[in-house]
Amino acid sequence: MAPIATTAPDIATDTIQAVKAAISAPKPTSTSSHPLDPLSAEEIKAAVSLIQTHVEDIDPEAKIWFKHVTLHEPPKAELVKYLLATRDGSTTAALPREAAALISRTTSAGVKFYEYITSLTSSSVISCEVVADLDHAPLDADEMVAAEEALLNDPEFAKVVEKLRLPEGAVVVADSWPYGCDTVDEVPRLIPMMTYYRTSSDLDSNHYATPLPLIPVMNPATMKLHSVEYTPIYGGESTETIESLWAKEENFPWEKHEAHEYKHELQASIRGGLEPLEVVQKNGPSFKVDGHKVSWQKWELVVGFNYREGLTLHDVRYDGRDVFHRLSISDMTVPYGDPRTPYHRKQAFDLGDVGAGVCANQLDLGCDCLGSIHYFSADMVTSKGDVKRMNNVVCLHEQDEGIGWKHTNFRTGNASVTRSRVLVLQMIITVANYEYIFAWKLDQAANIHLETRATGILSTVAILPGEISPYGTIVNPGVLAPNHQHIFSVRMDPAIGALGEGNTVIQEDSVPMAYDPKNTPKNNPWGVGYTVEKTPMELSGFADAAPHKNRVFKIVNPNRTNPISGRNIGYKLVPQPSQLMLSHPESVGFARAEFADHHIWVTKYKDGELFSGGQYTNQSSGNARGIKSWVARQDNVANDDLVLWHTFGLTHNTRVEDFPVMPCETHTISLKPVDFFTASPAIDVPPSTQAFNKSTLVNGSCGSCR
Amino acid sequence: MAPIATTAPDIATDTIQAVKAAISAPKPTSTSSHPLDPLSAEEIKAAVSLIQTHVEDIDPEAKIWFKHVTLHEPPKAELVKYLLATRDGSTTAALPREAAALISRTTSAGVKFYEYITSLTSSSVISCEVVADLDHAPLDADEMVAAEEALLNDPEFAKVVEKLRLPEGAVVVADSWPYGCDTVDEVPRLIPMMTYYRTSSDLDSNHYATPLPLIPVMNPATMKLHSVEYTPIYGGESTETIESLWAKEENFPWEKHEAHEYKHELQASIRGGLEPLEVVQKNGPSFKVDGHKVSWQKWELVVGFNYREGLTLHDVRYDGRDVFHRLSISDMTVPYGDPRTPYHRKQAFDLGDVGAGVCANQLDLGCDCLGSIHYFSADMVTSKGDVKRMNNVVCLHEQDEGIGWKHTNFRTGNASVTRSRVLVLQMIITVANYEYIFAWKLDQAANIHLETRATGILSTVAILPGEISPYGTIVNPGVLAPNHQHIFSVRMDPAIGALGEGNTVIQEDSVPMAYDPKNTPKNNPWGVGYTVEKTPMELSGFADAAPHKNRVFKIVNPNRTNPISGRNIGYKLVPQPSQLMLSHPESVGFARAEFADHHIWVTKYKDGELFSGGQYTNQSSGNARGIKSWVARQDNVANDDLVLWHTFGLTHNTRVEDFPVMPCETHTISLKPVDFFTASPAIDVPPSTQAFNKSTLVNGSCGSCR
Repeated sequence: MAPIATTAPDIATDTIQAVKAAISAPKPTSTSSHPLDPLSAEEIKAAVSLIQTHVEDIDPEAKIWFKHVTLHEPPKAELVKYLLATRDGSTTAALPREAAALISRTTSAGVKFYEYITSLTSSSVISCEVVADLDHAPLDADEMVAAEEALLNDPEFAKVVEKLRLPEGAVVVADSWPYGCDTVDEVPRLIPMMTYYRTSSDLDSNHYATPLPLIPVMNPATMKLHSVEYTPIYGGESTETIESLWAKEENFPWEKHEAHEYKHELQASIRGGLEPLEVVQKNGPSFKVDGHKVSWQKWELVVGFNYREGLTLHDVRYDGRDVFHRLSISDMTVPYGDPRTPYHRKQAFDLGDVGAGVCANQLDLGCDCLGSIHYFSADMVTSKGDVKRMNNVVCLHEQDEGIGWKHTNFRTGNASVTRSRVLVLQMIITVANYEYIFAWKLDQAANIHLETRATGILSTVAILPGEISPYGTIVNPGVLAPNHQHIFSVRMDPAIGALGEGNTVIQEDSVPMAYDPKNTPKNNPWGVGYTVEKTPMELSGFADAAPHKNRVFKIVNPNRTNPISGRNIGYKLVPQPSQLMLSHPESVGFARAEFADHHIWVTKYKDGELFSGGQYTNQSSGNARGIKSWVARQDNVANDDLVLWHTFGLTHNTRVEDFPVMPCETHTISLKPVDFFTASPAIDVPPSTQAFNKSTLVNGSCGSCR
Repeated sequence: MAPIATTAPDIATDTIQAVKAAISAPKPTSTSSHPLDPLSAEEIKAAVSLIQTHVEDIDPEAKIWFKHVTLHEPPKAELVKYLLATRDGSTTAALPREAAALISRTTSAGVKFYEYITSLTSSSVISCEVVADLDHAPLDADEMVAAEEALLNDPEFAKVVEKLRLPEGAVVVADSWPYGCDTVDEVPRLIPMMTYYRTSSDLDSNHYATPLPLIPVMNPATMKLHSVEYTPIYGGESTETIESLWAKEENFPWEKHEAHEYKHELQASIRGGLEPLEVVQKNGPSFKVDGHKVSWQKWELVVGFNYREGLTLHDVRYDGRDVFHRLSISDMTVPYGDPRTPYHRKQAFDLGDVGAGVCANQLDLGCDCLGSIHYFSADMVTSKGDVKRMNNVVCLHEQDEGIGWKHTNFRTGNASVTRSRVLVLQMIITVANYEYIFAWKLDQAANIHLETRATGILSTVAILPGEISPYGTIVNPGVLAPNHQHIFSVRMDPAIGALGEGNTVIQEDSVPMAYDPKNTPKNNPWGVGYTVEKTPMELSGFADAAPHKNRVFKIVNPNRTNPISGRNIGYKLVPQPSQLMLSHPESVGFARAEFADHHIWVTKYKDGELFSGGQYTNQSSGNARGIKSWVARQDNVANDDLVLWHTFGLTHNTRVEDFPVMPCETHTISLKPVDFFTASPAIDVPPSTQAFNKSTLVNGSCGSCR
């Protein structure tokens, strides 16, 4: 990275006054403020104004395109000081509010991207750095719409489409996709467009069921067609395209393909027999919300939200004790396994290439969750610098998760049973065809779970009807759904037991003892003994899951001991041992996904190191500015301020059953206390009784219902 | 096994009349009968009567102790014929009803166990075989009570307890445990008793918080004390016991230990703040129950229940198509990792040593599940031959499991979303201190999940306060909870696509293609390609999970092809890659757990091969009559009548948080259709709407709620 610093110019006095007035305006959703509150609409407007003034002073002719304006979180040192000072409920001086922004300036010389940091407290531009040409800014919603419109109005593209001889009334649809790189020095920034058509006049008709065998590529700097790529239309190794067919047979037609709708109104029939199941919370929810602060069943936390990670969790505490400082989904990559050009470039990084916050669904009451729902909304910037309100981007609600714990005394027949109530913070993102549902779940046993659900519509490509392929599954006649991986990277910044104290990550394996049937009884003469092998991580580095060794990773606070067990207090991560990156280590795709070749990474905390694939993933070429460069520092991470990262996901070999919309594929990772408490933290959950739960007997006897 | 056949004697005519009358009596819970219905009370009485008459004729002096009387399922060939004949709803001749029984006969010569098969249809004893001396019958509820009573009345044991100098008013409690073997030829049948004490007068006081350092061993044939074993009372390698301390210091007292209660009424305080969450199904459930036949959301199945496996699922079909013929939890083992004598013998096989059906909880409305609940009850035999009604041993209900599938059209903003409704069949078993919750879950996407929850109270042993141990965790002062494994074996008898046709199991790995950047485009020049490597299992055998290869096991029907994908229809098992048996391959503990050293087993179907650890697990010594002997036949299993078995579980290194009652540790395995359907089977699930779900807005906006 070669950022070029520019000097912040003076800002006109009237602008400063406007900004200050905006900041002091009442915030619509918050009743109390916190340093990690997302930027309010007024704060976004203030930052936009500061940036606009700054650009006008430098180059009045430049056209500004806003990519994002987001909270620049305070340095951890200051934040920790603030949090500790407010632990007992006392107030302390508010931390300065800052906004980070990415914009482009278009002039006659072309397009340049700039990173800004502005102070909303002092109404000033703190820094402005130009983005290197090899760093490609993410896509944004306005750009995707503009690219499609420009493509569909392009006469050269129209000529290509005409040769396909699509059915009467067919409408071409083009989804912007992030672009993989072929080499490490690829410019300019480009947008490949995945193309489809629909014949239905219903705008929600499923165009993914009828893909076209071509990928036009747009140049977003000019919004002109850069090139048209033709895709293989046979299965197997053949790379023959419709263009090469055209060379043999003029205007070889793209066959009429079959519609396959998902929208309920367009389906032939909907199943019956499903009776209502309502979650009724007659006294309302058990949680309390104060601005972005949430408390529930001994848990306290702060809810964050930004354009890139979407939902983040901060200052997570249980029963007044620190557990995690910050939890977030840091990055993800979706590499496709079809090796044929141009498919080899299909590798999305949905968070870095577009942004989970940008793509967040505005959730609907009664559709996305049951029971009593609290929603968090967010304000985002548009490309023009306006504020766009996104309603209900995060839902907060409770769920019943079955029995929490139970024991029956077989002598008396008396059962002690509790149910597990769970607090859910959920975000759903739509990235063109595909959906991800991310839910953080906190339970009464002090466990933290991250549930990921993959759903939505498979990325489909065109294939001649009757063909099959080793690289995917035919999910509709003439439609290949290529196999691919989803690899997530989760960032966990711990504060085990006490914010500000050092933590250590320990790898623990369960290993058989040496067997010696001739040996003395104190060894393992019967061959049944096993022990736990502990390997503390001393320097920043990586490790891998090993379920055959029951491997877990514990984050302990080596400064605090559990009075019952005599061991350090801790939390464990049971890593998901999913398949890692299948791309070859020398490939560009592998280099781009810095987090994707090991399950576990441990780094020393450093401000700003949030995104394990690096700040710029779109069309990235593997310049090693993500987690690999951070672990390479070989920092001390023993009894230190460390960050634990977990890479997990799924290799998704497509099924016919995944079309037209994939049933959720659900995975969960869990953080669980180990010797953190002096007994089960859930032991004092009230009993599960009929008086409380009011179940209904369909048949049978009622037992000893209380 | 060396069974000795005896000749069935004539049965007195009046007994036959009584039996026939009993069989024709109305059955209280069934409205229609099925060949797999569990034995009714009348059928149990009839079988008891047949056996009693049979024994009286041979030896009128013999005292009979009934271990179990259970349905002898019809041979598969006959059952398949019956099921196919009734597919269109037509009736066919009922299959003969048979009961299998295990009893002991005590005479002056000692105790012998006998296996009976009786015909309830022809009121006759079909077979009676004596059980070999090396095969040890399971424990039963009456025997456990009798063993404890005999022990606590034994003057020799009283003398030992006196030396412990327990606190005033202490009551000793003794749990019968199954016994591991030291050698392969161990007789007689013995019952080790895990001992504890309580000082509270409350019978539900948690005696597991105050274990004693001794394991008396009872001989159940005589109900006399066989021996007293003293357990190590230091941590680490020391095998010193309180008996050896007594040699140095007369009457070294067993320190007064601290109570640690779980019963809500005995706890110091119960947390507040939890508001009611009710599941209301105002129109009742969506399922229909007819006797033991259940239908729900295109699923149909028959619910079985027996003394050993507890809940079983039969003839499982989706949308009129066969999926599985029989699903059951076949076996499980819980080996402990403390190598010191006598702990090396701690290895329970809860299903074979006692029985999941025998240990099933009688579920309480509103305590164990929410919503509208249907219960199945069961009749069991007592040791005296009476019928014991067990109410509510299986609950049937629906759950909401979050979003089923969702897609939002980013152009129109229109979301299509469904919720996933799940049908749950749940059984909870209490095995002395510990609980297991087994739930089969069927969903609308045609997936079948088996969820296991481990809860209850850790098996605890005594240790001197202040000591710690490498073999477990101190969970209460003076209480060691040893580390252990829970290894389950699930049996899956498939009928993919068509009952009676052959199936094949295919191991599928996702593997990178060879990378050759210099190669032609049709290969893998960019290094991103991968394919699926398929290895069909031709002969009976085993395989292992390999998550780093994304390994799945598909059961396909090679006689049927999916018209969309062109591949064979199938279901896949995503195996849980949990740690396998840690005991040494030469150990007796390893030999006993025949299923515990590989994740996957495939056998050719054979009547009666239901229990992967063998028919007799209690005090078994590894005589190889379980799954290892069946796969050793090297049967053809390609396009054949095969059974797939999955071994999975957890290595449980204990936490302080697992005491006094362990929060549920939950694991799920799933069977999912792969190219079984021509589209997502869940696509026709009705939309999730506010009108249907009636959620409550706590704050925020309502979106476009319909």
